[in-house]
Amino acid sequence: MSVTPKINILQQPTSGAWVEQALANLDTILLDHSHCERKAASVALNLMFRYPSSTQLVWQLTAIAKEELEHFEQVNQWLERRGIALAPLNAPPYGATLKAQIHRREPERLLDSLLVCALIEARSHERLGLLATHCPDRALAQFYRSLVGSEARHYGIYWVLADSYFQRDLVQQRLAELAAIESEVLAILHPEPRIHS
Amino acid sequence: MSVTPKINILQQPTSGAWVEQALANLDTILLDHSHCERKAASVALNLMFRYPSSTQLVWQLTAIAKEELEHFEQVNQWLERRGIALAPLNAPPYGATLKAQIHRREPERLLDSLLVCALIEARSHERLGLLATHCPDRALAQFYRSLVGSEARHYGIYWVLADSYFQRDLVQQRLAELAAIESEVLAILHPEPRIHS
Repeated sequence: MSVTPKINILQQPTSGAWVEQALANLDTILLDHSHCERKAASVALNLMFRYPSSTQLVWQLTAIAKEELEHFEQVNQWLERRGIALAPLNAPPYGATLKAQIHRREPERLLDSLLVCALIEARSHERLGLLATHCPDRALAQFYRSLVGSEARHYGIYWVLADSYFQRDLVQQRLAELAAIESEVLAILHPEPRIHS
Repeated sequence: MSVTPKINILQQPTSGAWVEQALANLDTILLDHSHCERKAASVALNLMFRYPSSTQLVWQLTAIAKEELEHFEQVNQWLERRGIALAPLNAPPYGATLKAQIHRREPERLLDSLLVCALIEARSHERLGLLATHCPDRALAQFYRSLVGSEARHYGIYWVLADSYFQRDLVQQRLAELAAIESEVLAILHPEPRIHS
């Protein structure tokens, strides 16, 4: 199965195996997607809470958090339409592995946090794009298509924030390190179908 | 100085002393208000995270969180307009005192959490109403007036959620206990001007 071209900050594209797993488990993917949107809003709010004096960060992340909640609502409407009850789901190792890379000391902590968010948004962008292309339910495919642009904007914002608070060289070097780990976590397909399996 | 009539779930109305303190420190009140809106969004998100299968709760709190972020953005625009930089502020004892009343065991934890949120929203509704009435800056007073309705809706939603997940008698009894504590914390004006000083 063919996949979309590489997203510029990701080191490896998603495998066809993930696309097959996702298409065979669309209901679970939708439920996990709901959790991803809520988590993305929480992460943005937590960063705003941790850096309350960083005006640019607060303004940009407010916009992101609002949009994630909008998407959370839209995904939940899809769940309802398909008769899928809201329920907890085990998280795949993806998020925890990336979070473990974040330095505990500032200012590295801020840089790492922004770049990890950028990578997660970039991967979501790529994978929602794959669902938009391959999903056999045309209305659902259209919904995924409608989200792709936002995810791209979000990873752009996280990158621009990193670039505005840190030296370009440092950002690029750290991004390369984190991107290698991000691709490595996904190299072996997680057995439970998830947006980031 | 006269104050508005009692909000139905609050046991004691806000004192004239708070109104005087707030009007003498409008910039600090605006900055604290910004923090309150962001915290309110976080609290709603955290409840959604804790009760991911409670459909009604998740849907209603998503709407609240979105609206709080909208207000957060609007308050931040007021800060910018008045040249007030975003900055951390010490929290008054209000939130922590109420949070300490929340039982650790379910289902009491859910009931208490919803009622504490209802009380905080009701108090915010009352105090923003006071600012709307007494603020000498007419544009700012108009802004406060525009928020009053949402805060009233929010405390209604928290109350309705409590009432839908628990027996009415139990809700009323626990609300009376928590409302007594809520009024007690505010009986002595906190020296630092805050929305909940």
